[in-house]
Amino acid sequence: MLPKIGITLGDPGGIGPEVIVKAFSSLNSLPEAHYILFGSSLVVEQEKQALKIDLDIRPLERAGDKSSPSFSLFEIETPLKIVKKGAACKENGISSFSFLNEAFKEARKGKIQALVTAPISKHSWKLAGLKWKGHTDFLSQIYPQAIMAFWSDRMKTALFSHHLPLKEALKKVKKEKLKDFFLRLHHCLEKFQPGKFHFLVAGLNPHAGENGLLGSEEEKKIAPAIKEAQKQGMRISGPFPPDVVFRQALNCAETMVIALYHDQGLIPFKLEAFEKGVNLTLGLPFIRTSPCHGTAFDIAGKGIADAQSMIEAIKLAYKLSQRLF
Amino acid sequence: MLPKIGITLGDPGGIGPEVIVKAFSSLNSLPEAHYILFGSSLVVEQEKQALKIDLDIRPLERAGDKSSPSFSLFEIETPLKIVKKGAACKENGISSFSFLNEAFKEARKGKIQALVTAPISKHSWKLAGLKWKGHTDFLSQIYPQAIMAFWSDRMKTALFSHHLPLKEALKKVKKEKLKDFFLRLHHCLEKFQPGKFHFLVAGLNPHAGENGLLGSEEEKKIAPAIKEAQKQGMRISGPFPPDVVFRQALNCAETMVIALYHDQGLIPFKLEAFEKGVNLTLGLPFIRTSPCHGTAFDIAGKGIADAQSMIEAIKLAYKLSQRLF
Repeated sequence: MLPKIGITLGDPGGIGPEVIVKAFSSLNSLPEAHYILFGSSLVVEQEKQALKIDLDIRPLERAGDKSSPSFSLFEIETPLKIVKKGAACKENGISSFSFLNEAFKEARKGKIQALVTAPISKHSWKLAGLKWKGHTDFLSQIYPQAIMAFWSDRMKTALFSHHLPLKEALKKVKKEKLKDFFLRLHHCLEKFQPGKFHFLVAGLNPHAGENGLLGSEEEKKIAPAIKEAQKQGMRISGPFPPDVVFRQALNCAETMVIALYHDQGLIPFKLEAFEKGVNLTLGLPFIRTSPCHGTAFDIAGKGIADAQSMIEAIKLAYKLSQRLF
Repeated sequence: MLPKIGITLGDPGGIGPEVIVKAFSSLNSLPEAHYILFGSSLVVEQEKQALKIDLDIRPLERAGDKSSPSFSLFEIETPLKIVKKGAACKENGISSFSFLNEAFKEARKGKIQALVTAPISKHSWKLAGLKWKGHTDFLSQIYPQAIMAFWSDRMKTALFSHHLPLKEALKKVKKEKLKDFFLRLHHCLEKFQPGKFHFLVAGLNPHAGENGLLGSEEEKKIAPAIKEAQKQGMRISGPFPPDVVFRQALNCAETMVIALYHDQGLIPFKLEAFEKGVNLTLGLPFIRTSPCHGTAFDIAGKGIADAQSMIEAIKLAYKLSQRLF
């Protein structure tokens, strides 16, 4: 049976609808699946027209033959009358949240095996009176154990902490928390491919503390946590000098670097894997991926957005869902 | 008149002598200058023999014609009887320090315009009873205003702080200190090429603090320091999200990113510019460059070390010395 992959349209004013329509039209790039778009036909039709792309997206209830790949639309009511491109607004905030929320409900019910989310605008959400700062924030409040990871052929990294001031991120570096994180991450990836991944932990300090000369976290907290995770059968090593470990892991398909704070992982990832990079949330009962870019309001509506990252996000969601189910 | 460029041999047991002999033998890659090697003929001769490279390096006092390029040796006494490759030892520590110290004295006296240092071993220095942790440490104690920078065609970055535990590096982020650093850096580069460089400052927190949501240093300390430096005529902007700014500056020859801590600058630099990267110390009364690699004991004596970074370090020293004098 083909997997069902949900895709949210994202902020109607951003490049989300454009990269989705482009991805759907480059059929050869996508794996065979039932793709269910969570969004509004108004937005989809406008995008198809603007891009002059003819695409058969049927309403979900009228989706035909279950054995061949299909695109269908899970129509969600919105306050949209017209679609304003290129800026945040309340209507777009309400809409993109509804798309996500409906898709999320379907995923929780097991109706779809994976969820690919197009970018939302934090600002639109704020104008719509929503309290969450983004997808990860929304998902983390329901699944506090969710792990933010980034995935590409060239580099894979998971973030021990993400949207925290750096000062707070440092305080989080404690042996027990680290060990828990390592084992949770291990558990998530074991579900996809048992025994496949090797984990390299970045140090916190320059030269990974240089035997205590440049900081004590490595000796007191990070190394002991690694040792305990090893005892539980995890293939994990480190801590390594942060300015060496990402280079070391480059192009090693089965190696994942554990970054101890947001920029430690994202500076190298965005440099090396921006176009083909995928944001992956682990630790949810379903698979969730998204492209690495944002709404890109500055180029929205111009037809020049690159769909590569969206295509990669869809491909990864497919790949992981096939191992799982 | 051709500039005089001093080069130290580095730790005799490391790859320093090898990359120097290789660089000298690839004459076409080097600019026309008088190159003065600070080292020991024992080490140089052994290296030439091992690499089967014939090279005319005369004792300094017998260096001939001043108008054509030359290689000469500033012979420095050492306790070496034979050269042990591939490991730290006391004799190599004493030797590499003497090479540096003599070259440094000549540079201070203005006898050479630039100094290129081959890698030393911290461990050999320790065995020799020396208190400094490396070149930068040695130079910083004499010139506390020295600035550690990294230079390549693809990326240029200067470090606001370097060999400090990350926790300490965060505490250093204060408005006055930042402003002083910005202006000192500006002053150093103005000496080479007035009005040429534009500086981008990385934020400290994820998304550069996101208007205070993810940290307050950007609003309270970094932005005000940038504003004051701008008032003094410096072309500087930011703070920018750390995971965006290095990508933004990539391949912009006249842009330098100011990193607020060691790994913020060195993670991206080592990923993007390792082979051709040069370590540059600014704020000294002479130019000092060095290759980015270390002694590489694991491959020392095998003849397989890549001289590219040493060649780049020599070329940069030459280039900067020509603007200055």
